[in-house]
Amino acid sequence: MATPGYVDEKAAILRRLRRIEGQIRGLERMIDDDQYCINVLDQVSATTRALQAVALQLLREHMSHCVTEAVAQGGRGAEVKLNEASAAIARLVRS
Amino acid sequence: MATPGYVDEKAAILRRLRRIEGQIRGLERMIDDDQYCINVLDQVSATTRALQAVALQLLREHMSHCVTEAVAQGGRGAEVKLNEASAAIARLVRS
Amino acid sequence: MATPGYVDEKAAILRRLRRIEGQIRGLERMIDDDQYCINVLDQVSATTRALQAVALQLLREHMSHCVTEAVAQGGRGAEVKLNEASAAIARLVRS
Amino acid sequence: MATPGYVDEKAAILRRLRRIEGQIRGLERMIDDDQYCINVLDQVSATTRALQAVALQLLREHMSHCVTEAVAQGGRGAEVKLNEASAAIARLVRS
Repeated sequence: MATPGYVDEKAAILRRLRRIEGQIRGLERMIDDDQYCINVLDQVSATTRALQAVALQLLREHMSHCVTEAVAQGGRGAEVKLNEASAAIARLVRS
Repeated sequence: MATPGYVDEKAAILRRLRRIEGQIRGLERMIDDDQYCINVLDQVSATTRALQAVALQLLREHMSHCVTEAVAQGGRGAEVKLNEASAAIARLVRS
Repeated sequence: MATPGYVDEKAAILRRLRRIEGQIRGLERMIDDDQYCINVLDQVSATTRALQAVALQLLREHMSHCVTEAVAQGGRGAEVKLNEASAAIARLVRS
Repeated sequence: MATPGYVDEKAAILRRLRRIEGQIRGLERMIDDDQYCINVLDQVSATTRALQAVALQLLREHMSHCVTEAVAQGGRGAEVKLNEASAAIARLVRS
């Protein structure tokens, strides 16, 4: 298996994900404690934005490394990688 | 503290949140295992959608109970609840 | 046909929509003039946000009037209106 | 001024934008005719999705041409283009 584009940022991405895991557990506690709906909703929005930030970082690393390398090598591989990245961006924009 | 609108759905919402917590831990394992960027991104999109579904369920319960009760009582309290719900929806649409 | 919830805001909503129509025509001119992709993209994002603001205003008026009236009358009609509003919010969050 | 990435798709993009302009005018007529809030909202959602589709097409063309050329030439220009594209994607995801 090839090295992923985010290899130099693994520690930073894992830290972000562990913080998001903590936010989810915080949400579970809020529900358990019957916290007010609107306060829970605001925490869900904050967690969603944190997840989107992880997605944007992964995408940036993917383009700077995997897509860049494929384009530098040229040919059919470059096109495949560009189509794949475009499809992932579309899913991200729509989610 | 008043009973929150989602009180009858607590078990279902907690189940959803625990599943999302599992998805986040799955993402951590994917990063740890150097999984391919696009595969990680797709799991992030799936997790974001699952979080949005929780937000939509909380909002539905909030409107069916908290907002409905405030409107039935009428007066200034109804207006406050409607403005508060509108603001929460705006944050949700923009997150 | 009943009066829609936004009846008192018709002029304001029409003004917003005409401004958005102008933004769309501005986008057509940018494409016609071969403007740089990123500049066009930023104008598309601004136009999307302007459309979302119209949606949020329509939704706020709908809840303050149509949903509120149905809830005040109670019964099955209130439930129908709440379900309908929840479904519209879900489509908005996912679009 | 350089040729934009979407140059081969100008006609298709202009067609999409003119259709969206028609959707906006349709929204103005709906408001003018006091159409039901939820029906208007659904048309706003459809128009927002059509605008997002234009953004995704512009982005795909930008990556396949402008970013690809900059990467093929290498150096600082490639990095600038990748950062610029990442920032545009972030604005798109958040709008």
